[in-house]
Amino acid sequence: MLAGGVGAARLLAGLVQVLPPSEVTAVVNTGDDLIMHGLYIAPDLDTVTYTLAGANNPETGWGLVGETWQAMGSLDRYGGDTWFNLGDVDLGTHLYRTGRLASGAGLAAVTAEVAAGWGLESTLLPMTEDRVVTKVTLADDGGLGNEVDFQEYFVRLRHDVPVSSVRFDGAEASLPGPGVLEAIAGADLVVVAPSNPIVSIGPLLAVPGIADAIRARRDDTVAVSPIIAGAALKGPADRLMRELGHEVSVGGVARMYRDITSCLIIDSVDTDLAGAVEAEGMACVITDTVMSSPEVATDLARTVLKQTRE
Amino acid sequence: MLAGGVGAARLLAGLVQVLPPSEVTAVVNTGDDLIMHGLYIAPDLDTVTYTLAGANNPETGWGLVGETWQAMGSLDRYGGDTWFNLGDVDLGTHLYRTGRLASGAGLAAVTAEVAAGWGLESTLLPMTEDRVVTKVTLADDGGLGNEVDFQEYFVRLRHDVPVSSVRFDGAEASLPGPGVLEAIAGADLVVVAPSNPIVSIGPLLAVPGIADAIRARRDDTVAVSPIIAGAALKGPADRLMRELGHEVSVGGVARMYRDITSCLIIDSVDTDLAGAVEAEGMACVITDTVMSSPEVATDLARTVLKQTRE
Repeated sequence: MLAGGVGAARLLAGLVQVLPPSEVTAVVNTGDDLIMHGLYIAPDLDTVTYTLAGANNPETGWGLVGETWQAMGSLDRYGGDTWFNLGDVDLGTHLYRTGRLASGAGLAAVTAEVAAGWGLESTLLPMTEDRVVTKVTLADDGGLGNEVDFQEYFVRLRHDVPVSSVRFDGAEASLPGPGVLEAIAGADLVVVAPSNPIVSIGPLLAVPGIADAIRARRDDTVAVSPIIAGAALKGPADRLMRELGHEVSVGGVARMYRDITSCLIIDSVDTDLAGAVEAEGMACVITDTVMSSPEVATDLARTVLKQTRE
Repeated sequence: MLAGGVGAARLLAGLVQVLPPSEVTAVVNTGDDLIMHGLYIAPDLDTVTYTLAGANNPETGWGLVGETWQAMGSLDRYGGDTWFNLGDVDLGTHLYRTGRLASGAGLAAVTAEVAAGWGLESTLLPMTEDRVVTKVTLADDGGLGNEVDFQEYFVRLRHDVPVSSVRFDGAEASLPGPGVLEAIAGADLVVVAPSNPIVSIGPLLAVPGIADAIRARRDDTVAVSPIIAGAALKGPADRLMRELGHEVSVGGVARMYRDITSCLIIDSVDTDLAGAVEAEGMACVITDTVMSSPEVATDLARTVLKQTRE
């Protein structure tokens, strides 16, 4: 699975209910990663890890259940930056990752160690071990400068400002992470998660080699639409698509993915738009895609797996 | 006050009971500072800050009262290094300091900001803003190599191994921190805290300019002996002194400090050794120096201040 954060994590949690977890590999976006207070923070990798471990906070969609916030309270005492909330348990992950990276370990190895710490049997691969940073250009300078890092846009500005462009700094010179191309080439089925096409899947496709690898598997690649009834369930996918000139519909999603996938799974509320998907040269599968419970996620995972060619 | 950690912090807490806190300046050892998990940690600065704020943990002598350990628990899940215990609230301090240093602030400015965060009116000055690292050579290679950083010796090995030498890496090229020389030159009284002479006061004296500045104020400098009845109350001062060829007694302390101080305050249990102190050319003052309660610390602070010349 090509994975961003919350939506991908929920579908992965469904997949490991219907497949042996060891047969599931996620290639995860690292364009959102940030260095803050000296720590290397990988939000999408952590969301996927914590969710597969059953340790995620289902209310917030990010972070850990039973989390505490002592360090943030202390940081606040000094007037430090607290807009990116870091829970105490979560901090342990960032401390470990940062320490390991500083000692020369690669992000892929550290990701595997963190996953093993939670007892995960699935494989989580960072899309790259190079630094690729999603940069968002704001239509109006919001006081932070015209171009901001993704988390400043997403968290600090609550993605509540117009965007004029998005780029993936460092992507051109980056290499796919260890195992990424092999995982795509060897998969029975490649799944594009219902993640934000622009800022979650976009960075993966910007790493040279990954889009080509998926294109070569187009007949075995299925995407789940993150757009339902013309809107995103969560986050700024709809707004970003509109602002960057895409049609905010399952047809618009099909147009973005038609080169890399042969099938789009859409929600039943969009049944009457199946023709628009097929008009892009893709098969269209209709099912419930709103993963409001683990059961729906498991059912969606089953539908996804049914697209595997014999 | 030339200050290390716990002993200095207790005497400072006594001093601010008998003086306006704003009239107290501590020049604090940074030779123990370490970078761990990507964070810059300054144990002596933090011990002094937390103690003056009344927020220190009186049982451990380090860290904060009411501290929690969630991040360490998480780090332990991954098999990370947990020998240097970092509480969650304490972590907020390290996050703040590390972030500010990364953004280009100096350690002196950050130290002042942290002190202000706790409402301190006293001035805390790092001995230097340059990186000076106390290195301990072990008599026997304990599996970590012959030379280790101070905290590895002090915490990881529980200072329970023989030492053959100590050096202050980077000291030769270091500059005194902003305000340090001025504080020494302008003080009514310079106090050498009852800290470890070798690894707490030693680094301060190794920063070029500081020892000279104190020597110029020798008549106005008083030390409190960290050795009582031939032993250190806490930590490895006695053991280190012995292993590095010093006599473990108030006379031995007097010999180490005779060039920079004109007076040594010793505990009443060492009354019969006053002559040995005076033989080094120093005045000897006898009082209770075991700061087992804030009251004893305040009384000791009063005795220290009495040494101020009119």
